[in-house]
Amino acid sequence: MSGNVIRCKAAVAREAGKPLVIEEVEVAPPQKMEVRLKILFTSLCHTDVYFWEAKGQNPLFPRILGHEAGGIVESVGEGVTELKPGDKVLPIFTGECGDCRHCKSEDSNMCDLLRINTDRGTMINDGQTRFSKDGEPIYHFLGTSTFSEYTVVHSGCVAKINPDAPLDKVCVLSCGISTGMGATLNVAKPKKGMTVAIFGLGAVGLAAAEGARIAGASRIIGIDLNASRANEAKKFGVTEFVNPKDHDKPIQEVIVEMTDGGVDRSVECTGNVKAMISAFECVHDGWGVAVLVGVPAKDDEFKTLPLNFLNERTLKGTFFGNYKPRTDIPGVVEKYMNKELEVEKFITHHVGFSEINKAFDYMLKGESLRCIIQMDA
Amino acid sequence: MSGNVIRCKAAVAREAGKPLVIEEVEVAPPQKMEVRLKILFTSLCHTDVYFWEAKGQNPLFPRILGHEAGGIVESVGEGVTELKPGDKVLPIFTGECGDCRHCKSEDSNMCDLLRINTDRGTMINDGQTRFSKDGEPIYHFLGTSTFSEYTVVHSGCVAKINPDAPLDKVCVLSCGISTGMGATLNVAKPKKGMTVAIFGLGAVGLAAAEGARIAGASRIIGIDLNASRANEAKKFGVTEFVNPKDHDKPIQEVIVEMTDGGVDRSVECTGNVKAMISAFECVHDGWGVAVLVGVPAKDDEFKTLPLNFLNERTLKGTFFGNYKPRTDIPGVVEKYMNKELEVEKFITHHVGFSEINKAFDYMLKGESLRCIIQMDA
Ligand SMILES: NC(=O)c1ccc[n+]([C@@H]2O[C@H](COP(=O)([O-])OP(=O)(O)OC[C@H]3O[C@@H](n4cnc5c(N)ncnc54)[C@H](O)[C@@H]3O)[C@@H](O)[C@H]2O)c1
Ligand SMILES: NC(=O)c1ccc[n+]([C@@H]2O[C@H](COP(=O)([O-])OP(=O)(O)OC[C@H]3O[C@@H](n4cnc5c(N)ncnc54)[C@H](O)[C@@H]3O)[C@@H](O)[C@H]2O)c1
Ligand SMILES: [Zn+2]
Ligand SMILES: [Zn+2]
Ligand SMILES: [Zn+2]
Ligand SMILES: [Zn+2]
Repeated sequence: MSGNVIRCKAAVAREAGKPLVIEEVEVAPPQKMEVRLKILFTSLCHTDVYFWEAKGQNPLFPRILGHEAGGIVESVGEGVTELKPGDKVLPIFTGECGDCRHCKSEDSNMCDLLRINTDRGTMINDGQTRFSKDGEPIYHFLGTSTFSEYTVVHSGCVAKINPDAPLDKVCVLSCGISTGMGATLNVAKPKKGMTVAIFGLGAVGLAAAEGARIAGASRIIGIDLNASRANEAKKFGVTEFVNPKDHDKPIQEVIVEMTDGGVDRSVECTGNVKAMISAFECVHDGWGVAVLVGVPAKDDEFKTLPLNFLNERTLKGTFFGNYKPRTDIPGVVEKYMNKELEVEKFITHHVGFSEINKAFDYMLKGESLRCIIQMDA
Repeated sequence: MSGNVIRCKAAVAREAGKPLVIEEVEVAPPQKMEVRLKILFTSLCHTDVYFWEAKGQNPLFPRILGHEAGGIVESVGEGVTELKPGDKVLPIFTGECGDCRHCKSEDSNMCDLLRINTDRGTMINDGQTRFSKDGEPIYHFLGTSTFSEYTVVHSGCVAKINPDAPLDKVCVLSCGISTGMGATLNVAKPKKGMTVAIFGLGAVGLAAAEGARIAGASRIIGIDLNASRANEAKKFGVTEFVNPKDHDKPIQEVIVEMTDGGVDRSVECTGNVKAMISAFECVHDGWGVAVLVGVPAKDDEFKTLPLNFLNERTLKGTFFGNYKPRTDIPGVVEKYMNKELEVEKFITHHVGFSEINKAFDYMLKGESLRCIIQMDA
């Protein structure tokens, strides 16, 4: 069925923080339980930027980054029965084997076999890469490596979606938007009329705000260091904007004062450990729930007084908004198709693949929410 | 109705860590919304010991300690309609006004007006003490001060119980046993067949284990530094005993190995911040829930890597096992009356009031679970 090596263009990260280089690479055929995808659209998430910067993360280069994307199955490896060439799919950075305790648990999406692994740069089947250039292996990222015209992923990391779904839009559902929305709807679970604080108003945070709006929150307080996020945030249901730079005291104290004791729910989408602590300490005692989403630097410690817990606050964290990728994501795409969910407003920029480094600039400058990268342009 | 000052015996803590002194004190009549109780039996909880030792807590002396007790209403102050002289009651260290957001919330028992306050040594009505000796005020403790033949408490801190309940037994339900049992049943909420770790096998921890047994836990792992707790623990459903002193590596790692990835639930009942961190880090990723119960030293910080949360673990805390004192505790007493709940096995020692300091010795030596102090002996 497959067998052949594909030569195609990929954007290779060769050094921390240096522009990606568009190169011709070889993509080996999919092995057992793997599929090879033709990527049509990909977008940039802050997690890509972190591992590209490789500050406080384990550096691994040369590597093909990218994990928010949409594509078509090109070929399938041995044992793959649920996918076939031509299927429209979203690759997902955390998989679902369907068999392990996590896949069988109602609460977890952290599949024992296919859960997110930021350090691994190879395929789990044989510990080898499917990417190479002139015999030199090029590492994978998050099991997806979507900054390539073709990529190989484990079949458990692929959500088969409605064939009518426009990939240039729904590709953003394969990470950031689902993560933020799920963090609110599946984990923080605000009740109608509750107050919600969202830390970090990037695409993930604004999707979390969108989740709060869908849940019927009475106040949605957005917190960001980037003042320009204030206006954008209104489109996502944020009712009040707070910039920590405008206040001398810790931002959790400001929020506690604004809300007569604290918000009912908070969702942290910054990756900054101070914001994580603020997000926890700003929830109301008795019933407040805080949810961590941002990916922290490796050694940053979360610190608080135990009394903040004894006062009946809850702290949780989530990957991918607790969605099970294969089970739940096709349904999230359906919500978009039924117009229950808008993704267009998250898409602020478009670039062709050859200009992929511009997407990094937009994010680093805080100008973009999501920048769609069109592979054939 | 009342009006008169009562002269009676009380055990006064005059200095940190020094034996209590039995003295004759004056107990003023109850004021607005207060009741005066005749205490018949009281028991010693570790929280009394902490505030008596006053290490890392705010010292306040002279003070009458004690908060686990049973008694009879002697007289009531202005505005008290739900209690009358002769009612059999348990005074409770955290109250329930019935009107505030917490009292109206399903999730919280942290009443805005009457929640636990360890620093306050006076009545909220007028900021004065009801205890004095020769004109010198003697401070209250936790709004209960049950180490006295008579005490004055806010009527919202009093649970009216079945008049047939034996106070020498059910007095232990006014703090430790309810706290531990509630922490498991109301907060950790293990499902049938789950594994549960309990840190600290004093009365609170053993009551938490009892809760796990009632919930149908498959394994109940008890952790204590006191080796002599191993045997006792079996009576409370503990299936395995682990002593951190027997291991070189952090105890959370030992438990994770014993349980193939971590326990489903853990409940911390030590007050030691290291045990709190272990209790959190030993729960399984994906679905594990840890609950903090122990009262920490004032400045101890809870520290962990944010990734432990992102891996979908939950951390909560509780006071009084999330029971609402007036609404729920009469029902807990009924469970004892109906033989659904055994309290006798928690009661290891008895002393007369004149020998109250022995109760402190038993607890400090780790010999007792609960020592009942009979006021008229
Ligand atoms: N848990 C998951 O499954 C998952 C999935 C996707 C993304 N993420 C993480 O979510 C976070 C957000 O991703 P994104 O793509 O929206 O990034 P982004 O860069 O677009 O947005 C982050 C926002 O946070 C703001 N910010 C940074 N530090 C702050 C602070 N201390 N206080 C307030 N605001 C602050 C920034 O100004 C920015 O607007 C990142 O850490 C990313 O790695 C996690
Ligand atoms: N949150 C609440 O509402 C509430 C109510 C009552 C008691 N408490 C607190 O609960 C805790 C337990 O109370 P208790 O009366 O059962 O006390 P206790 O002294 O009878 O029991 C505590 C047990 O913990 C063990 N221990 C101490 N440090 C440990 C460690 N690092 N690892 C393992 N075991 C350790 C001790 O050996 C002892 O057996 C105390 O901190 C008390 O203040 C809290
Ligand atoms: Zn992402
Ligand atoms: Zn699985
Ligand atoms: Zn107590
Ligand atoms: Zn109240």
